[in-house]
Amino acid sequence: MSKKVVTFGEIMLRLQTPSYQRISQAKSLEVEFGGGEANVAVSVSNYGMQGCFVTKLPDNAWGDKCISELRAMNVCTKHIARGGDRIGVYFVEKGASQRASTVLYDRANSAIALASADDFNWEEIFEGAEWFHWTGITPALSDASAANCLMACKKAKEMGVKVSCDLNFRKKLWTSEKAGKVMSELMPYVDVLIANEEDAEKVFGIKASATNITGGELSDEGYKDVAKQLVEKFGVKMVAITLRESISASVNNWAALLYDGKDFFKSKKYNIQIVDRVGGGDSFGGGLIYALLAGYSNQDSIEFAVAASCLKHSIEGDFNRVSVKEVEALMGGDGSGRVQR
Amino acid sequence: MSKKVVTFGEIMLRLQTPSYQRISQAKSLEVEFGGGEANVAVSVSNYGMQGCFVTKLPDNAWGDKCISELRAMNVCTKHIARGGDRIGVYFVEKGASQRASTVLYDRANSAIALASADDFNWEEIFEGAEWFHWTGITPALSDASAANCLMACKKAKEMGVKVSCDLNFRKKLWTSEKAGKVMSELMPYVDVLIANEEDAEKVFGIKASATNITGGELSDEGYKDVAKQLVEKFGVKMVAITLRESISASVNNWAALLYDGKDFFKSKKYNIQIVDRVGGGDSFGGGLIYALLAGYSNQDSIEFAVAASCLKHSIEGDFNRVSVKEVEALMGGDGSGRVQR
Amino acid sequence: MSKKVVTFGEIMLRLQTPSYQRISQAKSLEVEFGGGEANVAVSVSNYGMQGCFVTKLPDNAWGDKCISELRAMNVCTKHIARGGDRIGVYFVEKGASQRASTVLYDRANSAIALASADDFNWEEIFEGAEWFHWTGITPALSDASAANCLMACKKAKEMGVKVSCDLNFRKKLWTSEKAGKVMSELMPYVDVLIANEEDAEKVFGIKASATNITGGELSDEGYKDVAKQLVEKFGVKMVAITLRESISASVNNWAALLYDGKDFFKSKKYNIQIVDRVGGGDSFGGGLIYALLAGYSNQDSIEFAVAASCLKHSIEGDFNRVSVKEVEALMGGDGSGRVQR
Amino acid sequence: MSKKVVTFGEIMLRLQTPSYQRISQAKSLEVEFGGGEANVAVSVSNYGMQGCFVTKLPDNAWGDKCISELRAMNVCTKHIARGGDRIGVYFVEKGASQRASTVLYDRANSAIALASADDFNWEEIFEGAEWFHWTGITPALSDASAANCLMACKKAKEMGVKVSCDLNFRKKLWTSEKAGKVMSELMPYVDVLIANEEDAEKVFGIKASATNITGGELSDEGYKDVAKQLVEKFGVKMVAITLRESISASVNNWAALLYDGKDFFKSKKYNIQIVDRVGGGDSFGGGLIYALLAGYSNQDSIEFAVAASCLKHSIEGDFNRVSVKEVEALMGGDGSGRVQR
Amino acid sequence: MSKKVVTFGEIMLRLQTPSYQRISQAKSLEVEFGGGEANVAVSVSNYGMQGCFVTKLPDNAWGDKCISELRAMNVCTKHIARGGDRIGVYFVEKGASQRASTVLYDRANSAIALASADDFNWEEIFEGAEWFHWTGITPALSDASAANCLMACKKAKEMGVKVSCDLNFRKKLWTSEKAGKVMSELMPYVDVLIANEEDAEKVFGIKASATNITGGELSDEGYKDVAKQLVEKFGVKMVAITLRESISASVNNWAALLYDGKDFFKSKKYNIQIVDRVGGGDSFGGGLIYALLAGYSNQDSIEFAVAASCLKHSIEGDFNRVSVKEVEALMGGDGSGRVQR
Amino acid sequence: MSKKVVTFGEIMLRLQTPSYQRISQAKSLEVEFGGGEANVAVSVSNYGMQGCFVTKLPDNAWGDKCISELRAMNVCTKHIARGGDRIGVYFVEKGASQRASTVLYDRANSAIALASADDFNWEEIFEGAEWFHWTGITPALSDASAANCLMACKKAKEMGVKVSCDLNFRKKLWTSEKAGKVMSELMPYVDVLIANEEDAEKVFGIKASATNITGGELSDEGYKDVAKQLVEKFGVKMVAITLRESISASVNNWAALLYDGKDFFKSKKYNIQIVDRVGGGDSFGGGLIYALLAGYSNQDSIEFAVAASCLKHSIEGDFNRVSVKEVEALMGGDGSGRVQR
Repeated sequence: MSKKVVTFGEIMLRLQTPSYQRISQAKSLEVEFGGGEANVAVSVSNYGMQGCFVTKLPDNAWGDKCISELRAMNVCTKHIARGGDRIGVYFVEKGASQRASTVLYDRANSAIALASADDFNWEEIFEGAEWFHWTGITPALSDASAANCLMACKKAKEMGVKVSCDLNFRKKLWTSEKAGKVMSELMPYVDVLIANEEDAEKVFGIKASATNITGGELSDEGYKDVAKQLVEKFGVKMVAITLRESISASVNNWAALLYDGKDFFKSKKYNIQIVDRVGGGDSFGGGLIYALLAGYSNQDSIEFAVAASCLKHSIEGDFNRVSVKEVEALMGGDGSGRVQR
Repeated sequence: MSKKVVTFGEIMLRLQTPSYQRISQAKSLEVEFGGGEANVAVSVSNYGMQGCFVTKLPDNAWGDKCISELRAMNVCTKHIARGGDRIGVYFVEKGASQRASTVLYDRANSAIALASADDFNWEEIFEGAEWFHWTGITPALSDASAANCLMACKKAKEMGVKVSCDLNFRKKLWTSEKAGKVMSELMPYVDVLIANEEDAEKVFGIKASATNITGGELSDEGYKDVAKQLVEKFGVKMVAITLRESISASVNNWAALLYDGKDFFKSKKYNIQIVDRVGGGDSFGGGLIYALLAGYSNQDSIEFAVAASCLKHSIEGDFNRVSVKEVEALMGGDGSGRVQR
Repeated sequence: MSKKVVTFGEIMLRLQTPSYQRISQAKSLEVEFGGGEANVAVSVSNYGMQGCFVTKLPDNAWGDKCISELRAMNVCTKHIARGGDRIGVYFVEKGASQRASTVLYDRANSAIALASADDFNWEEIFEGAEWFHWTGITPALSDASAANCLMACKKAKEMGVKVSCDLNFRKKLWTSEKAGKVMSELMPYVDVLIANEEDAEKVFGIKASATNITGGELSDEGYKDVAKQLVEKFGVKMVAITLRESISASVNNWAALLYDGKDFFKSKKYNIQIVDRVGGGDSFGGGLIYALLAGYSNQDSIEFAVAASCLKHSIEGDFNRVSVKEVEALMGGDGSGRVQR
Repeated sequence: MSKKVVTFGEIMLRLQTPSYQRISQAKSLEVEFGGGEANVAVSVSNYGMQGCFVTKLPDNAWGDKCISELRAMNVCTKHIARGGDRIGVYFVEKGASQRASTVLYDRANSAIALASADDFNWEEIFEGAEWFHWTGITPALSDASAANCLMACKKAKEMGVKVSCDLNFRKKLWTSEKAGKVMSELMPYVDVLIANEEDAEKVFGIKASATNITGGELSDEGYKDVAKQLVEKFGVKMVAITLRESISASVNNWAALLYDGKDFFKSKKYNIQIVDRVGGGDSFGGGLIYALLAGYSNQDSIEFAVAASCLKHSIEGDFNRVSVKEVEALMGGDGSGRVQR
Repeated sequence: MSKKVVTFGEIMLRLQTPSYQRISQAKSLEVEFGGGEANVAVSVSNYGMQGCFVTKLPDNAWGDKCISELRAMNVCTKHIARGGDRIGVYFVEKGASQRASTVLYDRANSAIALASADDFNWEEIFEGAEWFHWTGITPALSDASAANCLMACKKAKEMGVKVSCDLNFRKKLWTSEKAGKVMSELMPYVDVLIANEEDAEKVFGIKASATNITGGELSDEGYKDVAKQLVEKFGVKMVAITLRESISASVNNWAALLYDGKDFFKSKKYNIQIVDRVGGGDSFGGGLIYALLAGYSNQDSIEFAVAASCLKHSIEGDFNRVSVKEVEALMGGDGSGRVQR
Repeated sequence: MSKKVVTFGEIMLRLQTPSYQRISQAKSLEVEFGGGEANVAVSVSNYGMQGCFVTKLPDNAWGDKCISELRAMNVCTKHIARGGDRIGVYFVEKGASQRASTVLYDRANSAIALASADDFNWEEIFEGAEWFHWTGITPALSDASAANCLMACKKAKEMGVKVSCDLNFRKKLWTSEKAGKVMSELMPYVDVLIANEEDAEKVFGIKASATNITGGELSDEGYKDVAKQLVEKFGVKMVAITLRESISASVNNWAALLYDGKDFFKSKKYNIQIVDRVGGGDSFGGGLIYALLAGYSNQDSIEFAVAASCLKHSIEGDFNRVSVKEVEALMGGDGSGRVQR
């Protein structure tokens, strides 16, 4: 039977202007769903494991459709609570060249943000699971959501389920102070932590020396320094640091670093022409969890995660619609993009 | 200078599935804006008067776009307050044949629902205005909104501005009890009341004897009875009753009755093949206000309102994009739909 | 070898708003080409004869595309002159229910309107042809165009080619006075005349007694009267009168009458739900020419023409994309619209 | 736990021209999936039972997508065999008014047509099932497919699973002779037979006296006669006869008759404005199976089936996307199509 | 109150093939409006000043829509004359890689080209204005248009309104000889001149030594030389020279130079991935006028203009839909295109 | 009269997901037609010669449409046989960045694959022709197709028609062994052979020493070596080798080499941003045939072919919609992509 990976968080209705239109130009919006933890559940299901996404959705047509889309992606949806008033919405304008993409949230008072402890039976949810993943967005949604997240973490630990977290700081949802406080309480339950330098600083005040994210070359030493501090401070077993160089909204370089508390494993670096940047980080998480659970070596795991995520940037929507075979082909060196007939 | 008509209420982002798709099928949503009072402002501006719409919109891209669309329709937007967190949203599935259209609201906590008295300077707003229109939706949004509405009504009366109201009962927003109580306080300020039999009953418990709305033929006497009761109970000067016969989601009959406290004026009846039903009632209100203000006779006013509204059913979106010339051609008897070259 | 039918006139770029949008709503326009005589050439080519369309088109991408579309429809384009500044354009808003469709022309100074006698070698054009068709639009374009049309008619007569004309009065192009004068000079060359009552009156002042086109029932006697007057006045051999009852922009009744100078042949009447009304008359002409040339009886010819035209109302664009087999099935009585698997 | 309904047959890639375009006009095709038995599985899943669809699909992106769409509709797909070369394809042109819709098949050599007995473990498939449904298309696909169908019927009977069959004669797949022979062997296993008059005649030579399907009024006695003959000849327990009156491709009347070997139950008749006619019959089957299994009375069962199917004609695509609540509202008399807010 | 900037010229209906289609492929055209001076009015209105566009538009649905779009962009449209026969049209094919974009004009006989002196009351138009902008296209439209432009310039000077001109040579509208003659008469009224090397040579025969526009590196000295000659010859106070390096239709480098008669100010250079190139130059003009009027330093003004214009290349349509905040962020160094949440 | 170029092979219905969608995301598919030899016929017709495409197509709506599209492109279609069951179909997913485009074929049992010798009258077909072109796909379709190809080659030789072949190995259609055997029998009739290194190796086992296609720099010597071996082994008069460097699915370098048995002619190299890669090779063939037939020098011929093909990469669909003038402009050095007004 395929391995079960539980993820917990918010999934939203994603409404995007067509092509490169600004909201002021849009006569229609493209409908997708997305959210950090749902995206990870989709990734692992795509790779053949059993992604299982836990959230709360309203009992209306949008809640139904969201579940239907997840089911279409092979994600187990049976632990999704129903009720509440609304699904969160976010609007995406896709940027190009020097113009950044924008994400405008309308997520307050969503069903999951207002969900209570009664909505989730963690014991049942984690039955047979090997991995539990969440991101820093889940506890940021509300105090209730932070409490739910903590309860889940505790139960996961108790039942021997591995826990991963992607820091994902969202300044619209909480302050650095609040984030630092809440996340510090959750860190003891985390085995694998995914972060980038900026989030590490914003959430925990952990900085690398003299590196520059916006422009210039990235120094590996700075990133290693951050990874080490995270391991030391919170006792996590593994830290993965993603290394994005934003050349423009159209072109990014992309690589990552994995630290297992002893050794560093650095991936190849890809130069990416971007089709859809949103969900890029989550596809990294999904790839990493799959690879680690599937028993890839640490070096191969970070290569798989980065290659998977590289491919995601060429896929429209939050979900990463690629197969293990496609990811492995890229890991194996074929990024030539030659037509597959 | 053109006559100024002020309207006050909520305008929402209207997201509609393409063609006859259900939400479960939609990969895109068509973007429009709409709301009872905004639709009326658009109508009178289309006819050459100065519609002036008052509301509150968030200070984000959707608020900007909404104002831009109103401005494009020649509506004065300078009294629109900015602030708050969100614009209300509603989702439309267009029905056909025996399947009804559905409207799914996500409007709680909109900027206008949470607007305070400080957001509107009614003295300035009504300067130079001849008419003030609102619907039963505005006081239903929240207690604050009901208070704003009352304040506006009082100031309008004080400044000699005529007031019209479309009952428009929305059961998702309030109960009949609450509606009856709040609306009864507002009625004394109303000169022209627009209603249909169902709303009169739901809001004020006013019933006609032995008529049937869903099926069968409509008896005029029943409607006259309702109109008379409204005039007697609230002292309004005029009551317009719309007479919709829903044969199916695709075909409706449509007519109306005007009562000026003395005489009844009944319009022609139209058999309509429906393109877009939403906003149909508002286009009646817009036509009636224009015709009365422009000095049409009572008979011509009700004919203009019904013809305008008949045409609206052939127009996509909430706004009624027809000219006085087109409405008058239909009033004048040309409903043949022959190609205009 | 298939019979050759030459038609001469203007073909325009047809730009239509999607669905039922008004121009004020359109963010895109659908691209088609259309024009009375081109539509007829397409019809006869569809039925297996050799339609040959003569016009003048600018030597630019739109001229190329127009020729390409005609070629795709199997129309012979080798006698199309190239040059001039522009192709005429017309904008279509599709109506529904009581709202009429509108056609907005931007056709002045088109290549064909400014074409000179040198642009066409009629001797070559009519080589092997059996029929020549034009409409009242061609001489209305300009004096030069009227002269070209006269020249063509003379050469056709000289070479024994049958001539048909569809009156098609366009009030935006010329006055009734001018039309009457010019068309009267052209009538002597015409064998088969297609008209409706309104055009007969507008162009030649020929009226039937006491009939009403917009509403009510049509009296056959009135139409017969018109047909007889046309035969008597101009010596044409056949007159076809189309009988459109416009119930609304969505529903029309449609039938026709053929008069061969001796007998009247009346077709069945169809009740049509309209998909696209523009080009409906031309599809009648195309069907009639095909049927007469193919040797159908007079009764069958008028039935074929009306059935072909009935089907055109269900086809988007100016061109009638139906086969002889489909037309004959409808003539034969199957208008049930049952799915053809 | 919800009741399990197994269906077996072919599902195809459905590619439809947009709007009312003919294939000659299409620049794009809309993607859906559909097939008689799959459509029934979707219907019962929509109503809350567990539809389980059995077929064979190629191991490529289209096979994956098809399964994904079924899963999205809540259909159990775990017994779908994978392999073979291709999924069948059908192209739909939507008709209007007098122009019929056309369905062009490209289904030869599909995976399911070439499937062997080894592809299906019927014992496992029918575990826990209460109903098995197939249509006359399945045995028509190939001799192998007829053999698979027979095997399934035998196993179903053996395991006490009720069997229903929709005759659905397809003249492109086999002759009346072949159909009669093969279907007669399968009839002994059938409990509930769905048919229309035409199919009964084409497959079994069973005719009613003096009725006319294409035009005119339908005589109930004729249909009852057909139903009785089917019961007598094959010993089926129930026969449902659908009564479609095709007024045009845009408008149909729709009703049905249920015969339980003793009494006749006739449904209300609906006048339908058609959005999508394809899949209309299957939605009747799905509604009937649901209603009978859910314990509705015979009269209510036929009303439910007809109301469900009436609504399907307003839904785009093969699948009937309506809820029990919506069907019951229509059964209960509300076909007014009034906006549901 | 916001500063008023008047612009005068032609605005056209812009019809673009979707995506990268050639006209031969297009089944639809995207609808926008654009024109050099209108684009500048939109830019300054976007930045919060009061753009006021003066032109003449036909009194039909396209004229109405054009005004509506301008109003939506916050541009003052009250001085737009109505009348004439048509709005000019231009067709855009978007190029990519080595294939250039093409613009096909159909602008002859537009309302503005045929407008007379009576159509504009310049005294009223310039009331309260601080800036007047036009381009070399306006006088090229017709002799009447050149006369209107001269009259406007004279009145502007008289009323103390600053005048700017963008040379914009259009070889399809006039010859270099004609352009040189007409523009030389207008230059005495110009304060700020915008040009590129090619236009300077084509209109005035002013050349830089030994530079190459199509390929290779651009020498700054050559451009300075051109700027100096323009100042010396015409007495303009400022010259802005845009420096476009066309690497391909997909990638351009973009910078500019400002000369105030004493010092040169050179902007940063941007490497741009192009979404829509048309209107790129106008967005530079709009940015420059805004910055100079808003009191930016010369260096900041040229940086603002170039950054604004850089962003325009990522926006679809002629209008530059960016805010001051977005332009300043890019000026300030953030061209990383990182997602804005 | 224009020179006649005959091509023979399969043309398929090409169905592509919109934008960068994967099949799993597609709700619609874009309709084009394409096939190696048809694409070449289109190219030469575009350049003004008479392309004449020979194939077999089913007698249904798709066969009709395919012929219509070819006719629209000015290709002579009169030798296309009609009959058989189906047109082959292929599905395209467009890749980007590191994700390759995929082509999924559903072409088995197409009319052309099952065509017999009787379907083609080669003597008539080659009448007046100067060139005959086919690709390695034609004989790979089936043994019957290989036999047809051989018969055509023999007749071409007999009638003095020049023969060209593009190797185009398709591993899904046959093995290297089969290909080598069949192609070796056909080579004696070939005058001009087009290949790339990979195909030369896969079909004939001809390898260059130490070159690397996927990454790194290409060594010219290796390619020359391959060209020489092909000339020596088969006696072809000319070999053209295409040199594609796939940097990613979005960016390719593109050049080619021509060997006339004596001298090598190498083209410029282009760096291409890809809009549509499919059909890129065929546009090279079409350009080469045109240039050689039109009498360009060998150096100019290879430059024309490469420039034509470079432009094709910016055109959507299989067909290369560019003119001789556009190709020559690029050959002449203008790849700047500056807007053509």
